[in-house]
Amino acid sequence: MNKIYNPTPDTWSAILERPTKTVNDIEQTVKEIFREVQKKGDEAVAKYTALFDGGAPKEIAVSTTEIEEAIAIIPTELKEAIQLAKSNIEKFHFAQKTPKVAVETVEGVACWQEKRPIQKVGLYIPGGTAPLFSTVLMLAVPANIAGCKEIVLCSPPDKNGKINPAILYAANLCGVTKILKVGGIQAIAGLTFGTETIPKVYKIFGPGNQYVTVAKQLATQFGVAIDMPAGPSELLVVADDTAVPAFVASDLLSQAEHGIDSQVILVATSKSLIDAVETEIENQLKVLPRREIAEKAIANSKLIYVENDTIALDLIDEYGPEHFIVCVKDEDFYVDNIGNAGSVFIGNYTPESAGDYASGTNHTLPTNGYAKNYSGVNLDSFMKAMTFQKISEKGIQNIGSAIELMAEAEGLQAHKNAVTLRLKGIKDGK
Amino acid sequence: MNKIYNPTPDTWSAILERPTKTVNDIEQTVKEIFREVQKKGDEAVAKYTALFDGGAPKEIAVSTTEIEEAIAIIPTELKEAIQLAKSNIEKFHFAQKTPKVAVETVEGVACWQEKRPIQKVGLYIPGGTAPLFSTVLMLAVPANIAGCKEIVLCSPPDKNGKINPAILYAANLCGVTKILKVGGIQAIAGLTFGTETIPKVYKIFGPGNQYVTVAKQLATQFGVAIDMPAGPSELLVVADDTAVPAFVASDLLSQAEHGIDSQVILVATSKSLIDAVETEIENQLKVLPRREIAEKAIANSKLIYVENDTIALDLIDEYGPEHFIVCVKDEDFYVDNIGNAGSVFIGNYTPESAGDYASGTNHTLPTNGYAKNYSGVNLDSFMKAMTFQKISEKGIQNIGSAIELMAEAEGLQAHKNAVTLRLKGIKDGK
Repeated sequence: MNKIYNPTPDTWSAILERPTKTVNDIEQTVKEIFREVQKKGDEAVAKYTALFDGGAPKEIAVSTTEIEEAIAIIPTELKEAIQLAKSNIEKFHFAQKTPKVAVETVEGVACWQEKRPIQKVGLYIPGGTAPLFSTVLMLAVPANIAGCKEIVLCSPPDKNGKINPAILYAANLCGVTKILKVGGIQAIAGLTFGTETIPKVYKIFGPGNQYVTVAKQLATQFGVAIDMPAGPSELLVVADDTAVPAFVASDLLSQAEHGIDSQVILVATSKSLIDAVETEIENQLKVLPRREIAEKAIANSKLIYVENDTIALDLIDEYGPEHFIVCVKDEDFYVDNIGNAGSVFIGNYTPESAGDYASGTNHTLPTNGYAKNYSGVNLDSFMKAMTFQKISEKGIQNIGSAIELMAEAEGLQAHKNAVTLRLKGIKDGK
Repeated sequence: MNKIYNPTPDTWSAILERPTKTVNDIEQTVKEIFREVQKKGDEAVAKYTALFDGGAPKEIAVSTTEIEEAIAIIPTELKEAIQLAKSNIEKFHFAQKTPKVAVETVEGVACWQEKRPIQKVGLYIPGGTAPLFSTVLMLAVPANIAGCKEIVLCSPPDKNGKINPAILYAANLCGVTKILKVGGIQAIAGLTFGTETIPKVYKIFGPGNQYVTVAKQLATQFGVAIDMPAGPSELLVVADDTAVPAFVASDLLSQAEHGIDSQVILVATSKSLIDAVETEIENQLKVLPRREIAEKAIANSKLIYVENDTIALDLIDEYGPEHFIVCVKDEDFYVDNIGNAGSVFIGNYTPESAGDYASGTNHTLPTNGYAKNYSGVNLDSFMKAMTFQKISEKGIQNIGSAIELMAEAEGLQAHKNAVTLRLKGIKDGK
């Protein structure tokens, strides 16, 4: 593992550099599939499903029977676990509801802000070996609380034309209004343009491989919003001698098993802790089923020693980690002062996996430094803030001349005139 | 003017179609300037300022002396108008502060959400004939309330190397930390990469011409966030016989004077009102200084008659107007049920220009149908939501087995292990 001692601030950005991906070669493929889906709808979707997923299902839409079968298959224990996670996610996201913000800025000028749901949303859930039913919870629960009318979930079918039952169970539990067996670029294109079967949506959420990521970026050029730009997942742990090396190692490994491009960083104010964590990683790694992946990610990981908490915080804030675990004596120092992080996990008993599944926070978080300028998915991600204003005769008299002066100074006479006419109307008794 | 009576829903999208712009030919220029600014910094910025703005100022940064001169030049009346507007914008945006959202989802599992400022933001203010100092207020006031550390304003210099004094006055008043005489593509590129003089920022706000719009889009490919995608400004008025034709006409014209591609739509449940508004538009148009622009926009405008409020609402919701004026008897019907609009202006004494300048609401709003999926600029635009969780021994015992089950079902053993180790640690008394 890469151990780095007391790096000087001018080297931080190089040390903390994230893997960059080139997407240029993918872009052409994505554009072509978009054009074809826009033109040919379901026909094009079926073609690409057959090509990429090895056999297109006869019906894209998941039937009630398929959902019932899924419900029957899932073991009771897992159902209860999913229900507990759902309940916690619900509680936390429901609490994020903001009341109407109403202010009378001057007498007779009432202004208010209300949040209303994005009416149609698309949720993308990858297929493959790891069925991410937890992501279904993270997206469908807040969509439902927000009041989105259409919640469309797309996930690629396997070779038998099926979606993993845990995904179906979670989708059904969380109020998804339509589940479609379609994945990859063709799914994102379908949600962007709409086809005979796939509804056009206003915003697309969810993780995906490089193709899906590029497709989501392209979708934004056609008026669709997306949750956030994507990048490889990452974890930064700050620790001192109060941390438990075995726990820290297990957290770093849980990040490392995601993919070989996962970023894993330990910042510590204790050299002995770094050594102890290193030993623990080696031991725990041996027995992991996804050892090969984790090993490669760990090989790129950084264990960084710095002299004190102040330097550590500056370094971490410059990085802006997606997941940030704080296992130190003075945890408040980090919690109060961290400016850039997606989600923060505090103390020895708060593993990242708690937030990944069941604590109640959302696991769809800004990575790749986007914690500096993007929120993780939250209730507001499924709504938009609208403003309202109602001005009385008294109100326009109070602010009218200010508007006239400013409009005139900006050279916008018709803007001024809209006020002048009203002021005159009031003066003349209409 | 185009008067349309009782259009059937299948024709709405064609009737309400927005002007589309092709940006492909601009893109190449923008990319080139980005590359050059990234490589050569201030040197490239100076080159393009000289080329596009006719003479580069010696110093990009606006000096204290220049600000003092601007303060001295602005008439007291206009200063007071700007101060009133600022005060109202402050009141309304300050009220948008959200408290920490804290929930104990199950015993021992504390989750909370806090909003923290985006540390570095760039505000772009166009130059040209209309000095948009009102946009300075709309962006700098919430940036300041949010607590952004660096608030950098860029605006192109005129041929004498100056920025309009009203822009300088407003920027200084609203706590902008740095004002730079640089505009166009080179300004956006500078804010994206940083140069010797221009700080790199995390999010760029503000309107601009086609070049600036494409440059902002390109900036997002380099990790910078932007406020929202841009498009021509638009206004939709819904009116019935309770509306005052002269007022409605003045509002439509105030939108029309923005640019020849401005969208102006009247939806009315009264044919006589449509005729009266048409006459008023013709009369008011004659005396407007920006008549030529307004005339062209009005030529593309639509006056649409529909039979009742329900149809009107459906049509309006499908359009999703940036500005939506409601001048009808049953205004609550529209206010309560409109799903897609940027900002709503209610009643005969609430012209759009009130919101453009001084009511307190923000005038940076989603246009081009983006009201369906984007908020207008508000306090949250300058912040990001971060989540936190702290789990006690009791807490991890409460949710631990759910996490283990879900992680296992997703095939992520190291995620499970991070919990198993902790549960074992507790059982063994650490």
